[in-house]
Amino acid sequence: MKVSIIGATGYSGLEVIRYLHTHPYVEIVSIHSQTENQSIDTFYPYLKGLLSLPLEPINPEKIMAQSDLVFLALPSGISKEVAAPFVKNGFPLIDLSGDFRLEEQGAYEKWYKKEAAHYPLIEAFDYGLAEYRADISKPFIANPGCYATAAELSFAPLLQEQLIELDSIIIDGKSGLSGAGKGLTQASHFIEANDNMSVYKMNEHQHIPEIIQQFQRWEPALTGIQFTTSLIPVTRGIFMTAYAKPKNKIEPKELLELYRRCYEGKTFIRIQEENRFPVLKQIIGTNFCDIGLSVNEATGMITLVTTIDNLGKGAAGQAIQNMNLFAGFSETEGLLHVSIYP
Amino acid sequence: MKVSIIGATGYSGLEVIRYLHTHPYVEIVSIHSQTENQSIDTFYPYLKGLLSLPLEPINPEKIMAQSDLVFLALPSGISKEVAAPFVKNGFPLIDLSGDFRLEEQGAYEKWYKKEAAHYPLIEAFDYGLAEYRADISKPFIANPGCYATAAELSFAPLLQEQLIELDSIIIDGKSGLSGAGKGLTQASHFIEANDNMSVYKMNEHQHIPEIIQQFQRWEPALTGIQFTTSLIPVTRGIFMTAYAKPKNKIEPKELLELYRRCYEGKTFIRIQEENRFPVLKQIIGTNFCDIGLSVNEATGMITLVTTIDNLGKGAAGQAIQNMNLFAGFSETEGLLHVSIYP
Amino acid sequence: MKVSIIGATGYSGLEVIRYLHTHPYVEIVSIHSQTENQSIDTFYPYLKGLLSLPLEPINPEKIMAQSDLVFLALPSGISKEVAAPFVKNGFPLIDLSGDFRLEEQGAYEKWYKKEAAHYPLIEAFDYGLAEYRADISKPFIANPGCYATAAELSFAPLLQEQLIELDSIIIDGKSGLSGAGKGLTQASHFIEANDNMSVYKMNEHQHIPEIIQQFQRWEPALTGIQFTTSLIPVTRGIFMTAYAKPKNKIEPKELLELYRRCYEGKTFIRIQEENRFPVLKQIIGTNFCDIGLSVNEATGMITLVTTIDNLGKGAAGQAIQNMNLFAGFSETEGLLHVSIYP
Amino acid sequence: MKVSIIGATGYSGLEVIRYLHTHPYVEIVSIHSQTENQSIDTFYPYLKGLLSLPLEPINPEKIMAQSDLVFLALPSGISKEVAAPFVKNGFPLIDLSGDFRLEEQGAYEKWYKKEAAHYPLIEAFDYGLAEYRADISKPFIANPGCYATAAELSFAPLLQEQLIELDSIIIDGKSGLSGAGKGLTQASHFIEANDNMSVYKMNEHQHIPEIIQQFQRWEPALTGIQFTTSLIPVTRGIFMTAYAKPKNKIEPKELLELYRRCYEGKTFIRIQEENRFPVLKQIIGTNFCDIGLSVNEATGMITLVTTIDNLGKGAAGQAIQNMNLFAGFSETEGLLHVSIYP
Repeated sequence: MKVSIIGATGYSGLEVIRYLHTHPYVEIVSIHSQTENQSIDTFYPYLKGLLSLPLEPINPEKIMAQSDLVFLALPSGISKEVAAPFVKNGFPLIDLSGDFRLEEQGAYEKWYKKEAAHYPLIEAFDYGLAEYRADISKPFIANPGCYATAAELSFAPLLQEQLIELDSIIIDGKSGLSGAGKGLTQASHFIEANDNMSVYKMNEHQHIPEIIQQFQRWEPALTGIQFTTSLIPVTRGIFMTAYAKPKNKIEPKELLELYRRCYEGKTFIRIQEENRFPVLKQIIGTNFCDIGLSVNEATGMITLVTTIDNLGKGAAGQAIQNMNLFAGFSETEGLLHVSIYP
Repeated sequence: MKVSIIGATGYSGLEVIRYLHTHPYVEIVSIHSQTENQSIDTFYPYLKGLLSLPLEPINPEKIMAQSDLVFLALPSGISKEVAAPFVKNGFPLIDLSGDFRLEEQGAYEKWYKKEAAHYPLIEAFDYGLAEYRADISKPFIANPGCYATAAELSFAPLLQEQLIELDSIIIDGKSGLSGAGKGLTQASHFIEANDNMSVYKMNEHQHIPEIIQQFQRWEPALTGIQFTTSLIPVTRGIFMTAYAKPKNKIEPKELLELYRRCYEGKTFIRIQEENRFPVLKQIIGTNFCDIGLSVNEATGMITLVTTIDNLGKGAAGQAIQNMNLFAGFSETEGLLHVSIYP
Repeated sequence: MKVSIIGATGYSGLEVIRYLHTHPYVEIVSIHSQTENQSIDTFYPYLKGLLSLPLEPINPEKIMAQSDLVFLALPSGISKEVAAPFVKNGFPLIDLSGDFRLEEQGAYEKWYKKEAAHYPLIEAFDYGLAEYRADISKPFIANPGCYATAAELSFAPLLQEQLIELDSIIIDGKSGLSGAGKGLTQASHFIEANDNMSVYKMNEHQHIPEIIQQFQRWEPALTGIQFTTSLIPVTRGIFMTAYAKPKNKIEPKELLELYRRCYEGKTFIRIQEENRFPVLKQIIGTNFCDIGLSVNEATGMITLVTTIDNLGKGAAGQAIQNMNLFAGFSETEGLLHVSIYP
Repeated sequence: MKVSIIGATGYSGLEVIRYLHTHPYVEIVSIHSQTENQSIDTFYPYLKGLLSLPLEPINPEKIMAQSDLVFLALPSGISKEVAAPFVKNGFPLIDLSGDFRLEEQGAYEKWYKKEAAHYPLIEAFDYGLAEYRADISKPFIANPGCYATAAELSFAPLLQEQLIELDSIIIDGKSGLSGAGKGLTQASHFIEANDNMSVYKMNEHQHIPEIIQQFQRWEPALTGIQFTTSLIPVTRGIFMTAYAKPKNKIEPKELLELYRRCYEGKTFIRIQEENRFPVLKQIIGTNFCDIGLSVNEATGMITLVTTIDNLGKGAAGQAIQNMNLFAGFSETEGLLHVSIYP
């Protein structure tokens, strides 16, 4: 299978390259970026000896002629423009931006504060939460956001089984700085971020409508969530603690059993042993999502502790997983890397 | 005023020294530690040119003869033994450990998993939450724990005004590594902690009964809290997000007004402007406690974001504040340092 | 004494404020910045409760009317313009930029790649290496660069005593990110700097001519140095290892004795004990310069290990020290802070 | 090919596992550790879903019966005991410790401060500097130390061509904390290491005799080096700046040409473009050694900037490379991973 990558010099694009580099059935035939006219290993010397393709301008006709599928690893707002000719021609495309995730008219404009893609375009896409795909035969995949992936995989069993009070959901997400991309900002200045922690976009993060949309597929009555997003001084990773009040008291073992049953056979979802919780480092560089569970003896409150690599399961890893599903490869092909530990 | 410090080589003891070094009315007359027989600036070269007192063994008679007050900066379990002769002789003492905080029989044994101090001893102590002292005339002060300080200052206005559902309290605390002290552990090994985040003591942290005890002074009906404690890769600081459901819908401005009113004149509690939240670095090295407030439009949930330096307001800073109150100095004497920023 | 600070919102300006905040004889009467029309504690909430002066535009007449001295904490290139009216009027000024340090015509243009200040202006300045001032009565002080301070204090004894081969000097400097200021760059992006180390400006750093100029005051025959500059993932601090070959074999104790003698009575230069070397953290937030010494048994090579806080002894701390010297205060006034440790 | 790993739970052992996990021709048949009686993915949850072999006690007979080669990833001093039965039986072994590297009698005792292995044993080993192996047919390989690998690959071209003054070599090495292993020490305590830098073992590091031994193979007249070792606050990686004075002036392009020629065809040695220097992150998680070159215009001094991953090319990566050479696989098999960037 031949693929092209547009936005190859961004962090997500680089991570798509990293995973595909060892994928047995895929060849990267072209990479595209605004930083053209040089080889990617000149631009990024860490790739020397590994990949030396030229960075090319974006030419949809050429890509469609020579490839079988294209990854779009572009910022939200730009992606929808670049995607249009591929979709029009029915050419398989996996989009890592937020441009094709929100079905409700007006939601994108409200949360992204940009003009949305045309809705006929969006309807052509399948939301790519890999463990819960609606229709893997669709050639256009809207790969989920990083926070959204962690939140949705955390709550899926509770919502599907209708076990929790819907107004009690609290998601306390912490993200490493790569979640904010390559753009230089005050918040991502080393001196400001190092040895620091801060809240940003309190209840205003653009992944909120995406999470609610997916939650409502499981529990249509749900109307809102508390969603706190913070920056922690790490390069990669999302560490999420989430809370919900069960409708009826639930025993820790019962909860554990539910999650194990729900994620049985799902290689990338690793439910932790009783009284053990995920550690951020154990999933860095991988497509795993680790979930730990707790029930508070005194208050009955359920706590979910979930970790993913925002560039792995939260972006490029899940994109490869979706590509595997689409192409009919084993879901785990090219993705069973050992995390770099320590 | 002359003071002695027992446990001078631990992180809290060093921080007591740092604050007292510029206190205009206090002289450190002796420092005590198990690492005796050398000058503290030989043991810690960063103190060269600043403080060169010898590290002495613990001799209560000598301390009581030459000082006016003693700080105990010792691990829980050891402190109660060392404190005994001072208390017996009515000698003023500020204890930074957990040994004299819990009034309920059996609570210390259950949460600290150690034998408690004798209860007549504990009754002699006043709990040193500086902004809410019960009796500042008592010569024995049980300085609060770091998480406990942050949690209690966060919730005091809500609980005193009986505004929240008591079973809805969720405290999601993150701490820098110095919270765990100088003891070498796997979790505090640089390689494990760097670029990482992990949960520890989920609902089992020893500050839980201390928080509940203080909460019950404001709201006796409260029975339990959800208390999640995590390690973030910073040296100092507690960053706490906390949640509660109001009994009746509350407007953001109303909440802000409540906190401003409640903490008016309290120099060290800084309520942030509307829609602004504390940043961990802005309180490092100080005795400040910064609090930011939010009300979720969709769910009505209240979010409190609170930061303190675990060695400052969470330990040595508050101990100096308590000393100031006891001695009749201005509460802020020696404590209005500018944070090292950046 | 009344002072004004121009460039108050930069890292060096903030550090001047931090030191002056506890200086017993100095009052900050005005602060100036391009970010005007708001109080500094609105712009920087960490200053709330500590300093609430308004940020004012730069008005030399007003400053000269109300203050006794002005600090310029501005980027090189801008400083020389702002300084002009003060110098013309003989108003005392301490400049923290590189604009008034280089005496040789053409050196500034070559190394800073900008147009230089007019030389009559530069001649009015005294180079402010505080332990080696040529003329402390001059009212205009060119405060040294951070790397330059560390290098010059490291080599002064060896050069003054003419003990080393002049073509053997190697300086291997590592700096925390705050050395590069508040400007957002790829190199200071957290994701690039964290868990990383890199060389920059190899033999091209603008402090090289400054160092050589001072070295030549001690050893006119010196013509060049090897100067390697690197970024390490810390917020503050310069950690410098430097090497030189002695003309004649020197014993470790002899070397130690030389440095102790040379820096006797110099409070801020702390020569470490034999076989002990400075640790970066032990000087953060202070005006100290710690120096450790070694002689290689096999090769005879001398190694100097030197640490300063780039914003302390390398900028604001030394500026205050120079102010103390100029004003006739004790050299250490307001500067004997205890480092925040850990 | 079937291999066993002894010392599988240490950082080097884990890294051998990580590389072999994707090696096409190798199967890990057993792993051994003192932490026995559990599966490795119970001990290290990050391996769940990837490797679930049991941790077994060390049983040489069983290992020799079922495997073709054994990796020893044990601390120096222990390795020599464990290796003995394998060597006696001529069973292929790659040792990652320092126990079989030093040929000169007495050197090990002096630098490691422990009793050495018996010398007949040591003579059976080939020193495993992969690009400069003396005899790849030997079944016993003493894998080089991390600093030693970086130093030797840096200086090989200069020494082989006899271009430099032998008494002018200065090596300024900085290492991430994983270089010190899993053992808990004050220096590796997060609070001490974070935001810090320190020198350790100045001219006393145990890799010094190893480096000199290899240097003397190229330049027998060499007698000593200056070797400074520091800790930087990163998890992995060695960043080395090294200096030497050329016998005759050398042009930058000439130097670059020499290194390119010398390392032509050596996949893992990447000579950087002119005026570009390696960045630590670009080799993390890989077996690459990146080298940048500079000649000081003013002094003629040569500067070499070299980076390796101490657990990659400095340990496990090179061990796999040596295994490939021994087994007749392509040298790069299983080693052409893309670095996790950022």
